[in-house]
Amino acid sequence: MTVQTGFRDSTAMVGVGYTKFSKDSGVSTLALASEAIVNAVADAGLSMKDIDGIASFHMNDSAGPNLVGQALGIHDPKFYLEQFGGGSVSHSTVGSALQAVHAGVANYVVCYRALNSRSEFRMGATGRDTVRPNIETQYKAPYGLIAPAHEFSMFARAHMEQFGTTSEQLGSIAISERANACLNERAMKREPITMDDYLASRWIAEPFRLLDCCLETDGACAVVVTTAERARDLAKKPVYVSAAAWGGGTNLYSGADLDLWESGAKFMAPRLFAAAGIGPSDIDVAEIYDCFTYSVLVQLEDYGFCKKGEGGPYAASGAIKLGGRMPVNTHGGLLSEGYIHGLNGLCEAVLQLRGEGGKRQVPNAETALSTAQQGTACGFTSAIILHN
Amino acid sequence: MTVQTGFRDSTAMVGVGYTKFSKDSGVSTLALASEAIVNAVADAGLSMKDIDGIASFHMNDSAGPNLVGQALGIHDPKFYLEQFGGGSVSHSTVGSALQAVHAGVANYVVCYRALNSRSEFRMGATGRDTVRPNIETQYKAPYGLIAPAHEFSMFARAHMEQFGTTSEQLGSIAISERANACLNERAMKREPITMDDYLASRWIAEPFRLLDCCLETDGACAVVVTTAERARDLAKKPVYVSAAAWGGGTNLYSGADLDLWESGAKFMAPRLFAAAGIGPSDIDVAEIYDCFTYSVLVQLEDYGFCKKGEGGPYAASGAIKLGGRMPVNTHGGLLSEGYIHGLNGLCEAVLQLRGEGGKRQVPNAETALSTAQQGTACGFTSAIILHN
Repeated sequence: MTVQTGFRDSTAMVGVGYTKFSKDSGVSTLALASEAIVNAVADAGLSMKDIDGIASFHMNDSAGPNLVGQALGIHDPKFYLEQFGGGSVSHSTVGSALQAVHAGVANYVVCYRALNSRSEFRMGATGRDTVRPNIETQYKAPYGLIAPAHEFSMFARAHMEQFGTTSEQLGSIAISERANACLNERAMKREPITMDDYLASRWIAEPFRLLDCCLETDGACAVVVTTAERARDLAKKPVYVSAAAWGGGTNLYSGADLDLWESGAKFMAPRLFAAAGIGPSDIDVAEIYDCFTYSVLVQLEDYGFCKKGEGGPYAASGAIKLGGRMPVNTHGGLLSEGYIHGLNGLCEAVLQLRGEGGKRQVPNAETALSTAQQGTACGFTSAIILHN
Repeated sequence: MTVQTGFRDSTAMVGVGYTKFSKDSGVSTLALASEAIVNAVADAGLSMKDIDGIASFHMNDSAGPNLVGQALGIHDPKFYLEQFGGGSVSHSTVGSALQAVHAGVANYVVCYRALNSRSEFRMGATGRDTVRPNIETQYKAPYGLIAPAHEFSMFARAHMEQFGTTSEQLGSIAISERANACLNERAMKREPITMDDYLASRWIAEPFRLLDCCLETDGACAVVVTTAERARDLAKKPVYVSAAAWGGGTNLYSGADLDLWESGAKFMAPRLFAAAGIGPSDIDVAEIYDCFTYSVLVQLEDYGFCKKGEGGPYAASGAIKLGGRMPVNTHGGLLSEGYIHGLNGLCEAVLQLRGEGGKRQVPNAETALSTAQQGTACGFTSAIILHN
């Protein structure tokens, strides 16, 4: 395995910003993006005229960097990136921005995700108001794979059959994340849930119940990245990038080198950790993409926090709770904080490493993992390791 | 102006590949992309297992890198990028791939564009079979700006009013490019045209006639990029990257810092040339994005090949012909070779610098400019300077 270490610690995250998370923002994605970016730039102690790069990702459901950059008066950006795609590119979009500042073509790049995924283009539903099917849909829809829950549930079921994973184990993830959300004033869901609540929630696509599924959210968040050197002069404690990686295996639909109960992280995670020069046991807090509970479970295994097949017992043991061995989704995740398509997990990792996690702070957190969508049909994924 | 020169000459283009260009490919964009990539990889003397990165751009009208990469068995790519957007990102997509190999995260990245822009999602038409409107459309359509010709024509008209630019000057660009296409066996249009033909062609959106407008094409092309060091060991003469840049001003719709007759290249081109350490007079051949004749005219000015306002006389003087001072679109461009959304211009630049231009070869071409969409509503653009 070739490992690139030249990139290690050369870049940093220096500002994060949010809008309110809601079911009905009442404003455009252009307004949401602009608000989150203004907040992130202020958080970094920068002014908008310092920003010379802008990056985002979407599924043709959002104002892109061209429109947003111009609305904010970001004149002649030295880097811009408008990635098409879902959660699997949430961290590769930021990764490309990191490469741009590493290469010296831009100084301060703001990365954002803005969406009205409840009031406008619904992310989890089927029908006319959802995001538009892409080219791949023609190969999936005839098999009944239309909404994300249809796809992910199939893989969760395979995991249950192969390893004896239980509904209660999936439920333990939902319950743990909700407990964290109760400590986060930004979270959309702040009522604790019990296992009875979980088991009583209605089926969406077996084995997924309502409480296995993430929220649909209107909102935005943003993060400012720059070089490590520039980061030292800014308002907040810098959070350095140990490694950013993307990759993954080929999937179910195309001559799989992944079994149904595996994810692309199986291939990508070893490269990520090697590039960072650390292992899973060095991670203090993990913000793991959780469009469904199962996504957390399979990533706990494939990032090496537990052995393959043991994600269920590991989660149910309490290891992922605040105060556990490996606190996961301290903000409440996509399940309970809000669905900003994975970028809010990265923002939370930054807050944790600054010690700004408030009541949900992991004491003395020094190293964090933040990951993109996985566990599924799509073998591609991305992730970033950060430290303070 | 901060100039980044560390990137200069560290990367190279090592393979190009094409499909047939037609009005009706009869196959999917997945098949087109795969064929072009297979050809580009073979051209480089590589095998598919060497490829560890994949990048493309589209407007939700194409098979993306996930699907294509998996179809080709590109296992665990270290870099992937699926940019959403039109011609303005044709070169920034490749630029991001160059940054990735520069940063060492991937060794050989293939960049492609595949589209059925005539038989499937039409690029130039209005109505149901076109590419889906994006978020910006809501701000433009009420003013009658629906198809690209509606937008670009407005800027061409402003240039005519401001500088006295004429229809015949626009026509000279179409005629010159067609003459080049007649020397290119790949070109869709290989019948010479005269000024009478040009002036007799029907109005599309005044001042654009049919022959001011690019083709709609089914097809694909691809280019393989790597480090300069690796390039030296491959099958073909390496073509090195002097600079890649992207940027541009804010536009008409958002508090313009560009006049109607200017393009984002006004701001970006000086950075590009400074990064490359050369000026416009050092360019031997220019492949200039030409969705419309006017796009060439305004870029001739804004890249500094002539003074502002003199693009019309410059083009009409014959300077842009083969054998002229600055041969432009030696392949016939998007107007006459085919519309592969700007990536075919970059492929042509590579062929020219290898001396593989056949009957349309610019003698002793050492340095080439290849540019992305400009001249318009969209201030953003991107470009690459190459040398052999």
